[in-house]
Amino acid sequence: MAGKTALSPLAPARFPDLPVVDGVTFATIAAGVRYAGRSDVMLAKLVPGTTIAGVFTRSSTRAAPVLDCQAKLGGDPAGGAAILVNSGNANAFTGKHGAESVSAIVEAVSINCGVPSVRVFTSSTGVIGEPLPHDRVVDKLPDLNDALREDGISDAARAIMTTDTYPKGAVETIEMDGQTITIVGIAKGSGMIAPDMATMLVYIFTDARIAQDNLQAIVSTSSDLTFNCITVDSDTSTSDSVIMAATGASGVDVTGDASFADAVHRLMQDLAFQVVRDGEGATKFVEITVSGADTSANAKIHAMAIANSPLVKTAIAGQDPNWGRVVMAIGKSGAPADRDLLSIRFGDVVVAEDGWVSPQYSEADAAAHMKGNEINIAVDLGLGEATATVWTCDLTHAYIDINADYRS
Amino acid sequence: MAGKTALSPLAPARFPDLPVVDGVTFATIAAGVRYAGRSDVMLAKLVPGTTIAGVFTRSSTRAAPVLDCQAKLGGDPAGGAAILVNSGNANAFTGKHGAESVSAIVEAVSINCGVPSVRVFTSSTGVIGEPLPHDRVVDKLPDLNDALREDGISDAARAIMTTDTYPKGAVETIEMDGQTITIVGIAKGSGMIAPDMATMLVYIFTDARIAQDNLQAIVSTSSDLTFNCITVDSDTSTSDSVIMAATGASGVDVTGDASFADAVHRLMQDLAFQVVRDGEGATKFVEITVSGADTSANAKIHAMAIANSPLVKTAIAGQDPNWGRVVMAIGKSGAPADRDLLSIRFGDVVVAEDGWVSPQYSEADAAAHMKGNEINIAVDLGLGEATATVWTCDLTHAYIDINADYRS
Repeated sequence: MAGKTALSPLAPARFPDLPVVDGVTFATIAAGVRYAGRSDVMLAKLVPGTTIAGVFTRSSTRAAPVLDCQAKLGGDPAGGAAILVNSGNANAFTGKHGAESVSAIVEAVSINCGVPSVRVFTSSTGVIGEPLPHDRVVDKLPDLNDALREDGISDAARAIMTTDTYPKGAVETIEMDGQTITIVGIAKGSGMIAPDMATMLVYIFTDARIAQDNLQAIVSTSSDLTFNCITVDSDTSTSDSVIMAATGASGVDVTGDASFADAVHRLMQDLAFQVVRDGEGATKFVEITVSGADTSANAKIHAMAIANSPLVKTAIAGQDPNWGRVVMAIGKSGAPADRDLLSIRFGDVVVAEDGWVSPQYSEADAAAHMKGNEINIAVDLGLGEATATVWTCDLTHAYIDINADYRS
Repeated sequence: MAGKTALSPLAPARFPDLPVVDGVTFATIAAGVRYAGRSDVMLAKLVPGTTIAGVFTRSSTRAAPVLDCQAKLGGDPAGGAAILVNSGNANAFTGKHGAESVSAIVEAVSINCGVPSVRVFTSSTGVIGEPLPHDRVVDKLPDLNDALREDGISDAARAIMTTDTYPKGAVETIEMDGQTITIVGIAKGSGMIAPDMATMLVYIFTDARIAQDNLQAIVSTSSDLTFNCITVDSDTSTSDSVIMAATGASGVDVTGDASFADAVHRLMQDLAFQVVRDGEGATKFVEITVSGADTSANAKIHAMAIANSPLVKTAIAGQDPNWGRVVMAIGKSGAPADRDLLSIRFGDVVVAEDGWVSPQYSEADAAAHMKGNEINIAVDLGLGEATATVWTCDLTHAYIDINADYRS
């Protein structure tokens, strides 16, 4: 199990100091859902007036908690809200037991926290296909409710981890009307990461006041450009969820404000990068930009084909500037490309132009770039003006160690 | 480089005895294209009247030899034909040099073998993006032509290998009009294998007489159900080619004959399985069948999503009956599925029914199946009557060893 618990070499130096967000309190507890001796449940309670937006996996086999959350978006904020997350068991592909477990937990949160059940959002992450022992969570709800406190978010970031090697958090602030608006977020995720949310859970909290439809638009748009542009292994989870709650406790209304939307986008990108940097077995953080496409959708198809190619990812692990495999990935993507118009850069090194090796190409320079742990691959298709950028990591022995024996 | 040269544990016991096919002769030689001390060029010369059919990669960055072959299909068979293949260099993404190398080799074959240049088919396999030193091939053509002999096909199977750990050959015979019709084939390929031909070269020879359009139909149809249903790593080569030549030397015309088409299909499946069994790092041969789909195209989308999932493939490597990852792969495929109608079998073990673990599921039985080196995964979607079967292998450390350092 080499690499399973070792800290990712791409981990940030430290978990950020996350400020209190007025209107939300947190608690965590060790319920023994699957893991012993660690906290595995987090509860966030939100004040009346909180608007909630979310984006979820598009998997056709999505888990019961995801279906429940999707049905609840846009509800009346008057009664407040709560978010409960457990790690260790995904409550996915659990048949009718799945919905029963969600109902049991939602009712227990509602009763203990005094929040309407239609405003209780839950997520579960961990093993698929085993019934969730929801009584273990339900039994802890009185203690969880008693433990709620304003500064509990960093503990919450730890409680939702599975194979993550570090907790993930981010903060953004903006000034408005002489007041500071705070946005904080936490995330988990390190494998089964691909567009459409992957095994990733993200919770974002702000004290801004914002109309639900505007919040939903911001969350959807920025998720598409951040969380839906990262991939570790092309696999997509049945449970992925991004939930954002705006308590309004600052009294400042940001509905329609571009600087708020920009701050949310920055925070989401920060968290998305942290997820990639904790990709199972990752030793390189890789940014792939495809420009010169006819449409941005086609640019993203090419970029994802490169990012998900096992041959590209193993070459990066081997520090090999193997641009031939980049050409291969473009060729197989299915989106338009003209071999003889392609140009490719690794970092600042122009590798290929006009369908062949650049006259000034230096393998030594390219190899030097590949030795770093931040790799940039840029492809210009020469067809149009559209671009896309995606982020991924390399494919190493540690990925196989982790995933060939995850359940045992 | 562990695993690069070690024989695949899934290799056949021995290379088959391939009989002579009247009307075709073979020669091989060590031209030093890239490798020293091994044969790396094969030449096959075909008698006048030989019809030729082919199927090629659909990559948009396909190599120069592929473009040249595609343009030549369906030509006049009166002058005979020749096929020349080199390993070590793919002559792919080599700009204008690519077409120049093809022309030089084609002209040399034409002059030395007395075959019209429009009937000379070439393939190249190996490293992408480096100019092919075609003079090394051209210089050997007089010796190659002198060495042509009827029984040279097993040497040819070795000359076209790259990272293959064993040569691949197959034979089928059918009786017709009191005569035996012989079909033999050779193949290379062990990585970058995915639908639309992958890095795979296949050459099939028969002494049957058959109209070119019927031969093309048989090659296209059977390739779709064999070579286009295998995947090692989801990556698709720029060079893949299946070329079939019918010399007509037996004098028996098989145009429109179903038993001939069936024999070609069996031979293609045999070779396709041999390619999967030599998948880079493979320790398990995996058959994946999806039934109960609304259309066969959607059945294949699901089957390929399972076959290409790194999480499924690493679980198989770890001998883990992790059916949750099969559910995940179905969910992400994009084709229709209803979580609560799914049933899944590993071998004979019913794992899941009606969207949850089967009541009679035995993890011990499923784990016992996973310990074998022939794994069967069957999914029924419960939506309709369409099915698809694909074949793949597991994802192991050896795959990474081979591909993180291929060029050095």
